Amino acid sequence: MSDFFLHTQLAKDTFFIRDLKLCQLVLMNDKRFPWMVLVPRKNDATELTDLLPGEQKTLLEEINRVSVFMKQFYRSEKMNIATIGNIVPQLHIHIVARFSKDLAWPKPVWGFGDMVPFMEEEGKEMVSKIQGQLPHG
Amino acid sequence: MSDFFLHTQLAKDTFFIRDLKLCQLVLMNDKRFPWMVLVPRKNDATELTDLLPGEQKTLLEEINRVSVFMKQFYRSEKMNIATIGNIVPQLHIHIVARFSKDLAWPKPVWGFGDMVPFMEEEGKEMVSKIQGQLPHG
Repeated sequence: MSDFFLHTQLAKDTFFIRDLKLCQLVLMNDKRFPWMVLVPRKNDATELTDLLPGEQKTLLEEINRVSVFMKQFYRSEKMNIATIGNIVPQLHIHIVARFSKDLAWPKPVWGFGDMVPFMEEEGKEMVSKIQGQLPHG
Repeated sequence: MSDFFLHTQLAKDTFFIRDLKLCQLVLMNDKRFPWMVLVPRKNDATELTDLLPGEQKTLLEEINRVSVFMKQFYRSEKMNIATIGNIVPQLHIHIVARFSKDLAWPKPVWGFGDMVPFMEEEGKEMVSKIQGQLPHG
């Protein structure tokens, strides 16, 4: 999977966290919501059903792992998990930690207003903190 | 699982299609979008991670099955799959067949305007057609 390329829009909107077994895990550069994205490292996949059964199983494990981590890390109240891909066709799964007092609640975050990027140092620190605390697989 | 109850809001907004191995499959009563919902028949589950590994595996199979069916039945261009649950806490997974010419495209359907219910006969016919064509597990 050495020829994997993150879609330019995703690359522009996110920070790299770590390559897991199947997916590249990235953090959305949006201070409003704790929001990670799992991107299976298969350039040609656009739908969940494009993954082989074994890959889907791994994806499910990675969704669980990231969900459990985020819930604990952010002390969030609800996880929102989705694969939409109407704009960026590359298969990617959003995992968003939600709070009943966040800006968009109870609406979904997708398409909700404009992203609020981290300041440069702030983004680096957040990524580094996540990398330090996310358990290795 | 005989004591399963569909959340009142979901019951109000949907038509029953079929009980699968793990989930109750329902059709959203919204003519604007082909939109089904899988509801694991476990009253206490609110997050994906509340399901046991075996239940998650079955859920994944049911998501695949419904996605493949919907793509073929509606000849749709993109599947949107999500578990949100900010309003209805009972764990449920949306599966929506999208078209680049549908009303909300490229936005997600959740929180997009008001539902447009089927006329009574029309809803019954749609459910009956789906029940007739959805393969048995």
